[in-house]
Order: sequence, then structure tokens, then C-alpha cells
Amino acid sequence: MYKIGENTKIESTAIIEEDVTIGSNCYIGHYTIIRPHTVIGDNSEIRAYCFIAGNVTIGNFVRIFHYCNIAMGSIIEDGVYMGVRSLLTNTRRIAWGRSYKAQIAAPHIKLGARIASGAIIMPGVTIGTNSLVGAGSLVDKDVPDLQIWFGSPAKKRGTIQADEVFKYPQR
Amino acid sequence: MYKIGENTKIESTAIIEEDVTIGSNCYIGHYTIIRPHTVIGDNSEIRAYCFIAGNVTIGNFVRIFHYCNIAMGSIIEDGVYMGVRSLLTNTRRIAWGRSYKAQIAAPHIKLGARIASGAIIMPGVTIGTNSLVGAGSLVDKDVPDLQIWFGSPAKKRGTIQADEVFKYPQR
Amino acid sequence: MYKIGENTKIESTAIIEEDVTIGSNCYIGHYTIIRPHTVIGDNSEIRAYCFIAGNVTIGNFVRIFHYCNIAMGSIIEDGVYMGVRSLLTNTRRIAWGRSYKAQIAAPHIKLGARIASGAIIMPGVTIGTNSLVGAGSLVDKDVPDLQIWFGSPAKKRGTIQADEVFKYPQR
Repeated sequence: MYKIGENTKIESTAIIEEDVTIGSNCYIGHYTIIRPHTVIGDNSEIRAYCFIAGNVTIGNFVRIFHYCNIAMGSIIEDGVYMGVRSLLTNTRRIAWGRSYKAQIAAPHIKLGARIASGAIIMPGVTIGTNSLVGAGSLVDKDVPDLQIWFGSPAKKRGTIQADEVFKYPQR
Repeated sequence: MYKIGENTKIESTAIIEEDVTIGSNCYIGHYTIIRPHTVIGDNSEIRAYCFIAGNVTIGNFVRIFHYCNIAMGSIIEDGVYMGVRSLLTNTRRIAWGRSYKAQIAAPHIKLGARIASGAIIMPGVTIGTNSLVGAGSLVDKDVPDLQIWFGSPAKKRGTIQADEVFKYPQR
Repeated sequence: MYKIGENTKIESTAIIEEDVTIGSNCYIGHYTIIRPHTVIGDNSEIRAYCFIAGNVTIGNFVRIFHYCNIAMGSIIEDGVYMGVRSLLTNTRRIAWGRSYKAQIAAPHIKLGARIASGAIIMPGVTIGTNSLVGAGSLVDKDVPDLQIWFGSPAKKRGTIQADEVFKYPQR
């Protein structure tokens, strides 16, 4: 059904569906739901009330805080930080009850990017390596590497300094 | 206590309170709470972590995604789509600990309207037939039929084309 | 482990961790998590799906609605009202995988303040006595007493009248 690595703790109220792989030294919080065909690396934490919609790839040393919604097909690379209630979306044209098809494109959050609390990442958007998205932002364009974006809609507001890039923790 | 139609699936962790009516071919997700005196039609889905506050009327062929908050007294007509974490509110003047009374007025979401993820609909607001509210919007005025609104506060940004109106699915 | 006062109701799905003190006549809703070293006064309600991160102080006659996230170390005084999905944050510089330390500073919400639905209160911000924050606001500065602020970022938009100050309910 699913594979769980060593030293990984899953709270009793979390719901892990079929064909989910979780690495070692991970933590899955209360009331979190992980849907099928999701792969999570080692040393990652997903806190309470998160919804991982399925077909999601999450790397190593990732931190995903409470109430995050990770749309189906999202890719979250190593070292990413997602603050409380941040939201990855994947549906460009809502097609419910319409004759056309929805355009589905999930976000891609690259190595060491940080997304602050309450941000919304629109369908198909890429957040570049080590970039930072401010709290409550709505990001509807790709964010290049090493940039600071915030606002609604978010715009470039600064750059990441050399001492602010992600380094793998020693453990 | 409550009435549930045929072929309706309610996840084991959902909490359905007294005097709730749910039609046939519905789905109620994990950790969703449906409070008393709520009526839900046929062929509707309410996904995980939704809070349906009670005295709510939800039509047929409705899709309500994760973490939606539906304020007491809300009316949601047939074919409505509410994206992840959208929020219907009903309290105009917060009266907690004050000598006056709160002004309570719930939203009314009309036939085939679509509300994208993370939008907030303010008390008493009507979203017109087949209209579309963008992600992360704050809607504090009535939206007429067949319009596209987004932003915070939301404004009119476009119109819905003839091929974008809701049609009842054949099933 | 924890102390609970008289006439306090805790729903069966709430998770109360160690060293939590809750006064009398309180209500703790479904799926709410209260982490260690939190103290809650009398006559307060915390509704469903709230995350109280620990080391939090909550006063008397407080109302905290669904999906609120209360960051570690937050102080919430008597008579405060927090609408659905409002969010107190405490991390100024996200330090995950970086060589510096995060700057942690929790919000302080003073007597009788009201925070409407979906607002985000940034780290270290104080909301003054009896002040009101509008729905969906992002508050990144201290709000003085008796003021109305809203927007993203929030600004002063008005003042609270003398008949709008919090009075302790008689019960």
C-alpha cells in the first residue's frame, strides 16, 4: 500500500492513502491527508491539516506548515519552506459544468525557495531557486531564482543575498 | 436525525449534525463538519475540512473544495464551484462584547457561479449567475450575472462568454 | 497533564497536549489542536480546526473562530474576537536551512480588539485595545488603540466610537 522510511513519525489522525512513499526521519502531522502517488523524500516535515492532493513530489529537508494545500501534480524540491496556509493551485480555467476542458498545470517550487504564510501560488507558476515569496501574496507569474516577491499580485521587491541560500542541514 | 440519499459517500471522519439532509450521489470529505438545518441537493461534492455552519442551502451539482467556510444562512445554487479555502462570511458589524446587535447577512451564490481559491465573500453579497470571482479576491459588492471580478477589493474585469455558462452534466 | 475548569466542553476530536490550562465555561471545537504551555482563561471559545501553537496566553471572554492559527508565544487579551481563518504569525526571517537565526516575535492582541475573517497579523505586531482589523487584511505595523485598519497592507481607515468598546458580558 505505502512505504514509510525509518524514524518517520506519522500522527494517528493523519490519512495516508494508497501508493504513497515517505522517506526516513520525516514527520506527518495531525489531520493531514496525503493522496495517492505522492513521493516524499527524507528529513521532511508536513505539519497538521495539510492536504497533499496526489501525484505530488516532495524532496528532502522540506518544511510544510499547517493548513497548506498542495495541488495535484505539484513539484516541491529539496529545502523548500512553506508557511502556514500557503496554497498551491493547478486549475487555470475552472471547467466545472462547462463544455471545455480545464487547463491543469501545477506549480514547481525549486530548491530552497521560501513561501511565507497565506500566499497563493497560481497554476503552473515556478518559484525559482532560493527565492522568497512574502506573506499573503498572490503569485501569478514565474519568479526567477534568488528574488524576493510580494504583494497581490506579487512583484519583484528585492534580491536574495549570498548568505541566504539554502544549505543542507548536518544531521 | 439526518437523511442521506442513495449512493452518497460520507467519509468516516466527517461530522454530520442533527437535521441535515443530503441528496443522492453526493460526496462529503474527511474532517468536514455540517451543522444543523442544512440541506444539500443531489450530485454535489463537499471535500475535506469544510465547515458548513448550519441553516445553509446547497443545490445540485455543486463542487465545494477543501477548507471552505460556508457561513450560517448561505444559499449556494446549482452548479456552483468554490475553490480551495474560499470563505463566505455573514457578520457585518462584529458585536462581540458590544451593546448593539451584529448585522447578520449571508452570501447568495447563484446558478453556475465560480469562486476561485482563497476568495473572501463579504456579508450579504450576491454573486450573480455564471459569474467568476478570481483567486484571493475580497468581494464586498454584489457581482451582477455573467461578469468576471477579481482583486482586493474585487472589481469588474471582464465578462463571461456564451460558451462559458453552466450546463447540467449528463449522468 | 492539563487542567480544565468547570463547565468547559472539549469536543472529542480536539487534541489537547501536555501542560495546557483551560478555565471554566469554555468551549474547544472539533479538530482543534492546543499545544503545550498554553493558558486559556474563563468563558472563552475556540472553534473548530484552530491551531494554538503553544506558549500562548488567551484571556477571558475571547472568541476565536474556525481555522485560526495562533503562533507560538502569542498573547490574546480579554474580549478579543478573531474571525474565521485569521492568522497570527511569528517568524520575521525564515531561517530554514540558513546560517542565521530566525527572528521570532509573536503578535499581541489587546483588550477587546476585533480581527475579521482571513486577516494576517505579521510577526511582533500589536493590535491596540478595542481596535478593528478588516477582513482579508495584512497588518505589518502596530495598530494603536481605538482605530480601524484594513487593506493589504492595512492602513488606518477610521476610529472606534465610544459605544463600540468591549464590555464584559454579564453571565
